[in-house]
Amino acid sequence: MPADSDLILPVEERVDENLFRSLSERSKHEDFLRRAVDLLVERVVFGRSTRNSKVVEWTTPEDIKKAIDLKPRDGPVSHDQLLGIMADVARYSVNTAHPYFVNQLFSSVDPYGLIGQWLTDALNPSVYTFEVAPVFTLMEEEVLREMRAIVGWHEGQGDGIFCPGGSIANGYAISCARFYYYPEIKTKGVYAIPRLVLFTSELAHYSTPKLASFMGIGSDNCILVKADKYGRMDVADLEMKINEALDDGATPFMVTATSGTTVFGAFDPLVQLSDLCKKYNMWLHVDAAWGGGALMSKKHRHLLNGIDMADSVTWNPHKLLAAPQQCSTFLTKHKKVLKECHSSNAKYLFQKDKFYDTTYDTGDKHIQCGRRADVLKFWFMWKAKGTEGFEKHIDSLFENANFFLEHIRQRDGFKLVLDKPECTNVMFWYIPTCLRGQENEQGFEERLHKVAPKIKERMIKEGTMMVTYQPQGDLVNFFRIVFQNSALDHKDMVYFANEFERLGKDLVV
Amino acid sequence: MPADSDLILPVEERVDENLFRSLSERSKHEDFLRRAVDLLVERVVFGRSTRNSKVVEWTTPEDIKKAIDLKPRDGPVSHDQLLGIMADVARYSVNTAHPYFVNQLFSSVDPYGLIGQWLTDALNPSVYTFEVAPVFTLMEEEVLREMRAIVGWHEGQGDGIFCPGGSIANGYAISCARFYYYPEIKTKGVYAIPRLVLFTSELAHYSTPKLASFMGIGSDNCILVKADKYGRMDVADLEMKINEALDDGATPFMVTATSGTTVFGAFDPLVQLSDLCKKYNMWLHVDAAWGGGALMSKKHRHLLNGIDMADSVTWNPHKLLAAPQQCSTFLTKHKKVLKECHSSNAKYLFQKDKFYDTTYDTGDKHIQCGRRADVLKFWFMWKAKGTEGFEKHIDSLFENANFFLEHIRQRDGFKLVLDKPECTNVMFWYIPTCLRGQENEQGFEERLHKVAPKIKERMIKEGTMMVTYQPQGDLVNFFRIVFQNSALDHKDMVYFANEFERLGKDLVV
Repeated sequence: MPADSDLILPVEERVDENLFRSLSERSKHEDFLRRAVDLLVERVVFGRSTRNSKVVEWTTPEDIKKAIDLKPRDGPVSHDQLLGIMADVARYSVNTAHPYFVNQLFSSVDPYGLIGQWLTDALNPSVYTFEVAPVFTLMEEEVLREMRAIVGWHEGQGDGIFCPGGSIANGYAISCARFYYYPEIKTKGVYAIPRLVLFTSELAHYSTPKLASFMGIGSDNCILVKADKYGRMDVADLEMKINEALDDGATPFMVTATSGTTVFGAFDPLVQLSDLCKKYNMWLHVDAAWGGGALMSKKHRHLLNGIDMADSVTWNPHKLLAAPQQCSTFLTKHKKVLKECHSSNAKYLFQKDKFYDTTYDTGDKHIQCGRRADVLKFWFMWKAKGTEGFEKHIDSLFENANFFLEHIRQRDGFKLVLDKPECTNVMFWYIPTCLRGQENEQGFEERLHKVAPKIKERMIKEGTMMVTYQPQGDLVNFFRIVFQNSALDHKDMVYFANEFERLGKDLVV
Repeated sequence: MPADSDLILPVEERVDENLFRSLSERSKHEDFLRRAVDLLVERVVFGRSTRNSKVVEWTTPEDIKKAIDLKPRDGPVSHDQLLGIMADVARYSVNTAHPYFVNQLFSSVDPYGLIGQWLTDALNPSVYTFEVAPVFTLMEEEVLREMRAIVGWHEGQGDGIFCPGGSIANGYAISCARFYYYPEIKTKGVYAIPRLVLFTSELAHYSTPKLASFMGIGSDNCILVKADKYGRMDVADLEMKINEALDDGATPFMVTATSGTTVFGAFDPLVQLSDLCKKYNMWLHVDAAWGGGALMSKKHRHLLNGIDMADSVTWNPHKLLAAPQQCSTFLTKHKKVLKECHSSNAKYLFQKDKFYDTTYDTGDKHIQCGRRADVLKFWFMWKAKGTEGFEKHIDSLFENANFFLEHIRQRDGFKLVLDKPECTNVMFWYIPTCLRGQENEQGFEERLHKVAPKIKERMIKEGTMMVTYQPQGDLVNFFRIVFQNSALDHKDMVYFANEFERLGKDLVV
């Protein structure tokens, strides 16, 4: 270790001026930075995370444009104006840190995650070589290794990367799978190999067909498999469709299963899918972007039984583990495939004659060149809480979801979509008084379909909570409340139900 | 506009507790957050941007692992330990904010960019719908519109997106181009269309062949065109290769030109390339990730003459404009192609029965689903400096680069690779005393090849600056200093040259 005294360099010519110098005098910028940080801490972080603030200050696009001068201009604005702009940007932005923002598969602002992210920004790294990002490179390695161990692969087995989102992680899975069977695709392209088809559930995230399209396979060659009424992939239908594809002269090479579907939170049956993939010599990828966090709970990891038999996994710590946006990983059991499939050995970045061990220069595994460090915020949370802290977090989410489920099961006006959802998504219709008792009458479904958008409009305009809705298959618009913030308690669960009643009971459709 | 008093909700049941509650008492976390912010501001931001700090505290991977316990653990660590960890992470990370970090095409930490980034993190958005990210959605629209206007396209023409890096932006270009000519690729894949080939310079960034490979086209179908001695694409060679490809039965569909190559900073001749693309009915993409910033200078934008005739452009504000990592854009002249090519209309996110104008829900243009907001930091810098501030910044970079070039041109021991580079990259060999006067002797080149790695090793171990080196074609290892931080002045230019002399003069190879 170098001694502390080494930190001060002895070269005489250097002067103690800082990088802000050229912009103006240092003190002016220091002053701005301190005032801006105060505003961030007091008004944005602490001021917006309380239950008695609004989730959203609903404003139309036109009115936001009037309130904030969004157009870039020729000349500068003053520091005071900049501080005002910061406050306005915060004011009109949705408060995703709010306990009642339960609208998406991410929410909340974890204090450790936030500090980890702010430290990352202050260090402004790009993670491609050890030379430029030594700590981040090693940190990624350790975190990805630990995540693979939690998935259940043997110590030291496999490889992994951080990705800009789960969609692109699912794209990496397609890329690795097809290269594994047909390495010539790297140089020759899809032209040189048989027509590949992959399979995923009709309820899987849209990224698998979208990435199949981006990657030249075509969305039609991503074949959608039926789901059962709980939202899980139907294994018999999968096998039938594999055989249809074979009869059609296509080459099935991959199944993308889901652990925690977007809407229902369903977990596909991985053990059976793994057996089928072995039988047909196919790659099994598990999109556990949403459900992966459950692996950290002894009580709930059974939901992903069989995941250790997968060839690759997408797991987003920014979802169930509540790391800040964005923190997504792609993990694979295979040691070399990421590197062999994606490397291009650019001599101006991955020089082999460096003085250190260049196997630490891992950037060439990625399709990105410059790349943000998404690891530190998650690693820092992990340090602060320990694995046991994440476990408690997960267990409390499931406990809340169950409490909410049982609460609305017994409450007038609520009708569950799924009797027993598997993850922390709870899906329900809220039925206004005007529709009650008319379940069997003509036009009921069409009227019910209109309820959720109307309640959502009221909800957003009042800013008291944010919960999403959607139709699915034959099911008309229903609400989906998603628990991912362990700062919520039973009182909050009752609050949500009360709010639906308040906003929806007297609705006329 | 809602009145300020609306911000406090009248619902009685809510209590003034915040989201940190469940982790422990609020005060404990508030206290940690404040101490951590102090450390960030004092030690990381202000403490590391001075010239008399080290650029890097070189430490081997093994020693970093000893200094920081990188492995995630079962149990938590204390707040005091966390603060110590933050200091260690900063200490062993490369100081990319340092004025003498001139190693990559990004550097420095702009105070406005940093605050913009920190505000983004505190708001923790995901930019897919107006509902969830109203301000960020409109801000992206305004910034991308303004950037297209600067490129030179007509008011209101075209479309654009923020991307996770220039490599993926170059991938979007391939995706849009092939869809433009063969829309059936979206559903049918590459199988259904002729064998496509695209062209880029042999000195272009590696992302074009890498993404061509990822996207199923195959890297062999990305044909590399010769560059002239200044590093610019040879138009005659391009036309010859287009005709060879046609003779070979392939379908040329795209040229990816570069404005500011990675190593030489060369600008391909866009006017001629545009003529050729019209002649052969090909899409012209310009990778201006590095050089795009020059468009904001009246003095230097001629380097990109003809860019308004391109179909699409990659432009990374995190490079020449010094926004924080990562800020990359893909811009296209065509209004609909991004949406039509990439949309999948997921009903659980892009509901059409929302109460507001859902054309503001722009997430479906992207291959990402959840997506970080990279716009605010850049927009905030733009507000703070104005277009004229960026122009001054760019002009000072070119002025410094020219000063450095002329300084080393006349100085013993330095030999320029390019007599007159076009961008702010300056390339040179440093020739130790032991090699001087031996330019024509056998073995000179091999010995010179070893000089740069040795100087680099000394440089990093002392931590006095960071400058990269690489070979290129027949040219043995040379240094490339990259100016992208306008806080540097002529004194710094002399400092760099002095340092090369100090580190390299007595080297024996």
